[in-house]
Amino acid sequence: MKKEDRNIYISNIDLDEAIDSYFEKINFENNSYEEIDVYDCLDRVTIECIFAKNSSPHYNSAAMDGIAVISQNTMGASEVNPKILELNKDFIYVNTGNVINDDYNGVIMIEDVMELENDKVQIIAPAYPWQHIRPIGEDIVAGEMILPSNHKIRPIDIGALISGGISKVKVFKKPIVSIIPTGSEIIENIDELEKGKILDTNSRVFENLVNKYGGISNRYSPQRDDYEKLKSTIDEASKNSDLVVVNAGTSAGSKDFIVKVIREIGEVVVHGIALKPGKPTILGIVNNKPVVGIPGYPVSAYIVFEEIAKRIILKWSGLDKEQEDTYDAILSKRLVSSLKHKEIVRVNLGYINEKLVATPLTRGAGVTMSLVKADGLLEIPRNYEGIEAGSTVKVKILKPMNEIKNSLVSIGSHDIVMDILANKMNLSSGHVGSMGGIMAIKRDEAHIAPIHLLDMNTGEYNVSYVKKYFKDEKMALIKGLRRLQGFIVQKGNPKNIQKFEDLISKDVSYINRQRGAGTRLLLDYNLNKLNICVDEVIGYEREMNTHMAVAVTVKSESADTGLGVMSVAKAMDLDFISVGYESYDFLIREENLKDKKIKKFIDILKSEEFKSEVEKLGGYEFDKIGEVVHI
Amino acid sequence: MKKEDRNIYISNIDLDEAIDSYFEKINFENNSYEEIDVYDCLDRVTIECIFAKNSSPHYNSAAMDGIAVISQNTMGASEVNPKILELNKDFIYVNTGNVINDDYNGVIMIEDVMELENDKVQIIAPAYPWQHIRPIGEDIVAGEMILPSNHKIRPIDIGALISGGISKVKVFKKPIVSIIPTGSEIIENIDELEKGKILDTNSRVFENLVNKYGGISNRYSPQRDDYEKLKSTIDEASKNSDLVVVNAGTSAGSKDFIVKVIREIGEVVVHGIALKPGKPTILGIVNNKPVVGIPGYPVSAYIVFEEIAKRIILKWSGLDKEQEDTYDAILSKRLVSSLKHKEIVRVNLGYINEKLVATPLTRGAGVTMSLVKADGLLEIPRNYEGIEAGSTVKVKILKPMNEIKNSLVSIGSHDIVMDILANKMNLSSGHVGSMGGIMAIKRDEAHIAPIHLLDMNTGEYNVSYVKKYFKDEKMALIKGLRRLQGFIVQKGNPKNIQKFEDLISKDVSYINRQRGAGTRLLLDYNLNKLNICVDEVIGYEREMNTHMAVAVTVKSESADTGLGVMSVAKAMDLDFISVGYESYDFLIREENLKDKKIKKFIDILKSEEFKSEVEKLGGYEFDKIGEVVHI
Repeated sequence: MKKEDRNIYISNIDLDEAIDSYFEKINFENNSYEEIDVYDCLDRVTIECIFAKNSSPHYNSAAMDGIAVISQNTMGASEVNPKILELNKDFIYVNTGNVINDDYNGVIMIEDVMELENDKVQIIAPAYPWQHIRPIGEDIVAGEMILPSNHKIRPIDIGALISGGISKVKVFKKPIVSIIPTGSEIIENIDELEKGKILDTNSRVFENLVNKYGGISNRYSPQRDDYEKLKSTIDEASKNSDLVVVNAGTSAGSKDFIVKVIREIGEVVVHGIALKPGKPTILGIVNNKPVVGIPGYPVSAYIVFEEIAKRIILKWSGLDKEQEDTYDAILSKRLVSSLKHKEIVRVNLGYINEKLVATPLTRGAGVTMSLVKADGLLEIPRNYEGIEAGSTVKVKILKPMNEIKNSLVSIGSHDIVMDILANKMNLSSGHVGSMGGIMAIKRDEAHIAPIHLLDMNTGEYNVSYVKKYFKDEKMALIKGLRRLQGFIVQKGNPKNIQKFEDLISKDVSYINRQRGAGTRLLLDYNLNKLNICVDEVIGYEREMNTHMAVAVTVKSESADTGLGVMSVAKAMDLDFISVGYESYDFLIREENLKDKKIKKFIDILKSEEFKSEVEKLGGYEFDKIGEVVHI
Repeated sequence: MKKEDRNIYISNIDLDEAIDSYFEKINFENNSYEEIDVYDCLDRVTIECIFAKNSSPHYNSAAMDGIAVISQNTMGASEVNPKILELNKDFIYVNTGNVINDDYNGVIMIEDVMELENDKVQIIAPAYPWQHIRPIGEDIVAGEMILPSNHKIRPIDIGALISGGISKVKVFKKPIVSIIPTGSEIIENIDELEKGKILDTNSRVFENLVNKYGGISNRYSPQRDDYEKLKSTIDEASKNSDLVVVNAGTSAGSKDFIVKVIREIGEVVVHGIALKPGKPTILGIVNNKPVVGIPGYPVSAYIVFEEIAKRIILKWSGLDKEQEDTYDAILSKRLVSSLKHKEIVRVNLGYINEKLVATPLTRGAGVTMSLVKADGLLEIPRNYEGIEAGSTVKVKILKPMNEIKNSLVSIGSHDIVMDILANKMNLSSGHVGSMGGIMAIKRDEAHIAPIHLLDMNTGEYNVSYVKKYFKDEKMALIKGLRRLQGFIVQKGNPKNIQKFEDLISKDVSYINRQRGAGTRLLLDYNLNKLNICVDEVIGYEREMNTHMAVAVTVKSESADTGLGVMSVAKAMDLDFISVGYESYDFLIREENLKDKKIKKFIDILKSEEFKSEVEKLGGYEFDKIGEVVHI
């Protein structure tokens, strides 16, 4: 489809303004309630405050096991001058919770009673009036407010409601949220997966978010890009639900006609929000119901759902006051943003030197894994050019704070062994290459940095880099693995790649690693030694961030070879031409060696269990693993 | 039943030691997994780490709407020197997500393309290789770890799992938890409620906690105190579940034979834990399954469930690492505890002068409402005599932190209008009487203190007390209501109580308020004026903490009269003999008047809506309400 068929102009309205003008058009007042059994009301929200019908206890009762007495008759009792009481005349036995009727007005604990013969007991202290008696209403007084309105009911609240004589509770109805995934390329069955087809994931994330926030999700199968069909589906959905979420097709592509559909059968209140990711968002009203068009990229989809759909669901549920907790963190590096929009940035969080440090992750809208791995989200308001490193920022957390606090933060070069380690301890692992790791330690973003940096002059690993970048600082290297690097090639090595010189064949395409990656330095070192210019290597400018990504590129025949470790080639069932071992070590500030997490990390490195798991991957050597070298 | 039939000796074992020795006896290794659909795995816990089967995207795809081109053919294009490209020869149109096959290696955004006639387009900038192409595996690389083991699955994780080609997930089985409420006095039907019967609330709280923590609850009806029947019930339950919780009968009462039952059919590992509340706890093993006996008082029950049963459920669910977040707070007043046990104290939390302040609430084990109203729980370790005021303590929160931060904290005298206010704004309200309120402001525990303190010398309200207790400090009173105080009496006033002199009749029993309550001062002031000695008033020593509690005592005919406000008498359908109006005002530090929450509070006081709701209660006047008097 050509340019003229597209609607490339969408607005750039402030998020808060957009929500304000949208919410004005939604009839939230119309929220209906239902009366449900008190036993089933967990996590539901009260629509009005609830007052106790009964007192609890509803009678004067014994607060202790013992004897009920008449206080006046016990006066004067002492060790020197004990008193004798007679059963059924002066006292009766009571257990905790028994009725204390009007004949008695005090309880003496069984431990303080000496039992004699003939149903008599001796006491050596008086009982003051109403001693050890739980009076009527001690816990709950009839007429007292048990819960306010707009309160999300907790387990303990249910106990109090029952005690207060409440059997039915008026709560907000759960809003019904229809979720409509659209796009002819979207499939829901993994068996139908082929080039050009995309598995529907967003609608599955949405339905779980709807459940989590207290709505009822009504998910449609993926809908083809058929204008008339979509029109009738959205029309029907808006009649049967409180909120409709339409996913993808909200932007300016040739098949992005959701906005036209909504305009035809309802009203488009906003198209285009000053939010990144998430700009191509549609806020519409159809049949007096909110219809939100959410862009297709998974991260945009998640952010827009959280910023807009979630607020609508909570408001329908009586929880519009609820906001998420935020934590103060120190931003580890400068974040640049545009004045034009508010931006939500994924961050890793770690407690480094007793400060909560936020390190920005990739900003790509397509990278679901960056959300899965993120510990939190940070907001750069509109009209800000960015935030300086060292600033205190507010972050919303995506994992329990306790997990974040106990995490060892590793930023640097990637290796499969990091996954094995992450499964053995709480490890948050960022992959930015070896030089990125050095910078992360420099800025105190991480506890450790896995590095494998070849000195171009000496051919040695790591130490000279540490000396260069941390001149007067006390550093250490925890010795890691020696790992085999080489050319990852297709099965059978069809291009017969054996050495670096083979890369300059016109017939061979290479897939490179990003600047600062140790593996890239390994290539540069060897090209340099052979006096090969990088321009001669086809594909030198095409960069991947991990060994795995290089292997996948080769596997898919999108490149003939790339440098990487043997374990990855083996895992992907590719062939491998070794070029030699390198040292993959962990850089750390010396003062952090005493951290309990580091002790655990070293113990795991040295363990036989770890070594035997790594050996299965192939291409690793363990001499000196876990040893500390002070620099 | 007499003393000799009781087992009054239980041990006092440290909680952590008790749990360690108990957990050693539970076969947690035996936890089984189940393989479930990826679509149904929200909040389930991974039993092993999950690696991606597919890459995502699984083909090179367009990252933008535009045209796919051959990079080499676009080199040299510029504004001065545009290039013309031909459809299906030099380029094809692509939408975001479309396949980029091997013929092309770059995408130019549609916005940068000028469309000409005859299927030609003009470009004014080159496309560098792989520009705007999402390479295979950009998001997820086949073989990459998507989730570690022991991870609770979130909505976004489900999206990543589907993208990674995962359709089934191995998760921990949900543990089945049998809950057995016991006690012949326990009923579950509110219609059967009579003196001596108690509604079953604990098992309902437990079943909701089990669900919340990821177990499956199997709740029994309340079981009578029948030794043989209980034995077979516990035996059967332990065979059919992973954990059995038996409630009440765990202590030293004459019907407390749970410990004997467990000893007969299994093993009692611990009876008696150094924990307050919660000492009479039983940790047993029956049929190789953990059976936990939990005491009956609601607060003890909740604490023991949280400290022990919850940990077992989480461990069965693969979440034993999980701990709750704690917050640092300043303790507002000294807490005394015993060296003998660890104590869990309910606290109110408030942000006062930008510090999180924790104020201890009642420590009674029977007061469910204190848990409902508590914002958090604080732990006093064993072997501590207490914690000094001003110390920093760790608290576990029971409400969202955001709600706590936005709460106006009121501590002082009680009135029903506080409930009306709490329903209109975020208000945390503690009832400790007027003098308690003054002390709370003194110690910065509260933003405001409702007080009604009669000066015994002048007969005036409040101001002289503020001057006395805050000598050189700048204080203010927000004028509240004038309210009618009087004698609350039974319907028809059978004892014909009309004035204070009538209280000294031998025939009249009085129910008093606690020391420091304004209403008690009102009584003392009048008795003093009439030269009546307090000993002459029958019931003077019997104290209640609120007007409501006084009214309930009269209503239940446990006393003939007590002083209280008209609105309460009316609400409880009792008669009321007025003794005069008093001033119920709100004490505040002047510096806190600028707080947004206070502004909102004053606005509500002044609103017609508030006044009309209060008028319905009866007995209030509003002159000067909301005015600020500086002292």
